[in-house]
Amino acid sequence: MTDCSVVDLLSGKFSVGQVVKVKGWVRTRRDSKAGISFVAVYDGSCFDAIQAVVPNSLSNYEEVLRLTTGCSVMITGEVVESPGQGQAFEIQATGVEVIGWVEDPDTYPMAAKRHTVEFLREHAHLRPRTNLIGAVARVRNSLAQAIHRFYHERGYIWVSTPIITASDTEGAGEMFRVSTLDLENLPRNDQDAVDFSQDFFGKESFLTVSGQLNAETYACALSKVYTFGPTFRAENSNTSRHLAEFWMMEPEVAFADLDDVAALAEDMLKYVFKAVLEERGDDMAFFAQRIEKQAISRLESFISKDFAQVDYTDAIEILLQSGRKFEMDVSWGIDMSSEHERYLAEEHFKAPVVVKNYPRDIKAFYMRQNDDGKTVAAMDVLAPGIGEIIGGSQREERLEVFDARLEEMGLNKEDYSWYRDLRRYGSVPHSGFGLGFERLVSYVTGMSNIRDVIPFPRAPKQADY
Amino acid sequence: MTDCSVVDLLSGKFSVGQVVKVKGWVRTRRDSKAGISFVAVYDGSCFDAIQAVVPNSLSNYEEVLRLTTGCSVMITGEVVESPGQGQAFEIQATGVEVIGWVEDPDTYPMAAKRHTVEFLREHAHLRPRTNLIGAVARVRNSLAQAIHRFYHERGYIWVSTPIITASDTEGAGEMFRVSTLDLENLPRNDQDAVDFSQDFFGKESFLTVSGQLNAETYACALSKVYTFGPTFRAENSNTSRHLAEFWMMEPEVAFADLDDVAALAEDMLKYVFKAVLEERGDDMAFFAQRIEKQAISRLESFISKDFAQVDYTDAIEILLQSGRKFEMDVSWGIDMSSEHERYLAEEHFKAPVVVKNYPRDIKAFYMRQNDDGKTVAAMDVLAPGIGEIIGGSQREERLEVFDARLEEMGLNKEDYSWYRDLRRYGSVPHSGFGLGFERLVSYVTGMSNIRDVIPFPRAPKQADY
Repeated sequence: MTDCSVVDLLSGKFSVGQVVKVKGWVRTRRDSKAGISFVAVYDGSCFDAIQAVVPNSLSNYEEVLRLTTGCSVMITGEVVESPGQGQAFEIQATGVEVIGWVEDPDTYPMAAKRHTVEFLREHAHLRPRTNLIGAVARVRNSLAQAIHRFYHERGYIWVSTPIITASDTEGAGEMFRVSTLDLENLPRNDQDAVDFSQDFFGKESFLTVSGQLNAETYACALSKVYTFGPTFRAENSNTSRHLAEFWMMEPEVAFADLDDVAALAEDMLKYVFKAVLEERGDDMAFFAQRIEKQAISRLESFISKDFAQVDYTDAIEILLQSGRKFEMDVSWGIDMSSEHERYLAEEHFKAPVVVKNYPRDIKAFYMRQNDDGKTVAAMDVLAPGIGEIIGGSQREERLEVFDARLEEMGLNKEDYSWYRDLRRYGSVPHSGFGLGFERLVSYVTGMSNIRDVIPFPRAPKQADY
Repeated sequence: MTDCSVVDLLSGKFSVGQVVKVKGWVRTRRDSKAGISFVAVYDGSCFDAIQAVVPNSLSNYEEVLRLTTGCSVMITGEVVESPGQGQAFEIQATGVEVIGWVEDPDTYPMAAKRHTVEFLREHAHLRPRTNLIGAVARVRNSLAQAIHRFYHERGYIWVSTPIITASDTEGAGEMFRVSTLDLENLPRNDQDAVDFSQDFFGKESFLTVSGQLNAETYACALSKVYTFGPTFRAENSNTSRHLAEFWMMEPEVAFADLDDVAALAEDMLKYVFKAVLEERGDDMAFFAQRIEKQAISRLESFISKDFAQVDYTDAIEILLQSGRKFEMDVSWGIDMSSEHERYLAEEHFKAPVVVKNYPRDIKAFYMRQNDDGKTVAAMDVLAPGIGEIIGGSQREERLEVFDARLEEMGLNKEDYSWYRDLRRYGSVPHSGFGLGFERLVSYVTGMSNIRDVIPFPRAPKQADY
């Protein structure tokens, strides 16, 4: 008797006639008048459940008749061809052992019926038991694995950039403080301000908003690196597109310019989409059926097309000449909103678009200044169906240009001394981008609320589990 | 002309006579009296540098004569066989373009000489440029990639458990608080206590110390999962073995008992050690030469031996009968210290050892009680040369036993309601373990201070960069 997973059984790894043992949870049970029960058992290894055909000759058949959704069972029996549609094999059960009952099935939150995503979110510890969230978890894993594989195959080194940081960076206003100070007895300094020198890290410390600056230090030593880890925003916005805690993937490449990393972004996205279509056809079929009709076709289309490339300045021209009335007015200098981005990708180019060379005033201090004095070597990748999915730039590697920009923005040179060192010692052109991992999972699955594509979402007033 | 990496050149991917372009940093320069300079260039793709042979006929040869360690260069030339020892190929340079100079080479912190690890730690942004820390980064990456590959090949799903949590768990005393409250104007409630309901998450929130409890929720739905992410300890200990922020890998397996996960731990460790020996032979040779003589041989020995298995009770007996005087006295019930663990692995068994079934009083509340009433199904994996490297357990899946244990320990049932749900609805036996990733990198490389195997270490008074 061989222990086996549902995916191995359904994919024919065991031959008809073999005696097997399967462990999992009951999805549904149906009893026929002929004294046979059909018990569908899942174990998370794939979307589908395996059907066990249970005869009433089993000594504990009365237990079988009490099985409900969510009960854990161990089923032994023979692999047989399935006469029914939809699956090739089933199990002719010779034994059903109940491992764990469901206490009070009538109130079991995950009973076999359609639940709203809002209801599931309130039961984040049980929702992976549903078809929907189980499929999300498998697709999320498939994407993460493909990302690591893509970079590893190309000689990139995964670098773990710090989560806690006392480094002064942009956007400190939206950062979470990390502290062990006793709030009932805050230490004070001479000026009667809170004395962070007595805090754990000896300085006021925060959760990171991006690993980029740290990743640059490793790219300027090892050439090709990437980060993949959690990042944080203390933004008080309760929307379907924001999380306080999310995973970010950021490659950083020495000797690469903006076009190089635009090409990298294209290769990477196509690689991971191919992987998920190959590995998770079952789950993707479910998403196409239940969540977003285009789930599969839009990935296929994405893979098959060359990315369009357009300068920000030309993109603005396209929008102005579109004859379209946008909610937000178009003019050179605006930070494009979702409606503009989607028009470009979905209607004008009908393909993923890389928009390049944005106005410097709407972009970060570290981006490389172009010769026109007005724009920086920044890019966004816009995908049909979602808009911006990747943002990146070439970094300013010229010390004197960087310093002038710091001064212009009123930032303190001392705070960037280690970052400036990269420009003082063997500086190289380098570029990178960031991909919000949950945005990616959301795009692939078609799940419209980002809180449903991360196991335990963190948002304002929400840090349970 | 083909762009190529140093590793591709040295491994013979380009044939003799081919014209190539290499981009990287100068490790050393040596000038011969015959008017030829030998410039060693590294790019992080492997341990070794490629030697460029530069003739004084180059128009910018005076620039070449000013090259120092750390300068970034682009070298073009022809691949030739190297007459020297140690490498098969070198480049006969026809062009050397200096991309970035080193400002004031005399004070460049990473000049080509041996630095102490303490000095390197104070220059964490530049230290990946050294042979030592570059090698650590590649080995660390190789281990991380192997971990993901190992689990993915076996159908495990990577689950990202939350970093911020308001969940009450053990050890809250050593947790970092995460907050956006204004410390100069702390909100107070009716009882004049700090009012965390006004904090970002509406509750006092912390950085996670382990993803295990969350991972259990996914294992009890998808069977086989693992986490790999950062975890935190606000322990005020400044030792070579502790970090405030470190990465942890935790598999969690449904329908698995303690022996199953002990076998999983053995398979996993052997798999990743094989991978690193295969992929990073160059870096491992360096560690064996410079850091820890046994670096390679102890991994080979680890891979070739079956793990020994011993009950805690028998292990105590072995220690008592060893005739050895330990600093800490041995008796049943003690939490073994490193000297005991290393005696067992290095002297008694001369192999990795799994110690099982520890006294319940020294272990966590969630571990499964054994029938003897005195021990729990916990295990530690002890490795020769380091001691404990993995800790795990079978989890208590029986609701009534779990509840009795909570009561005994004075813990509040309500605080564990979602964890108890896993035992109320289709409960299954399940087990898992935790591996501190930096401990693993430390073991493999022989680096004795854990702060040298993570890019930007966090410890008391240390959160720079």
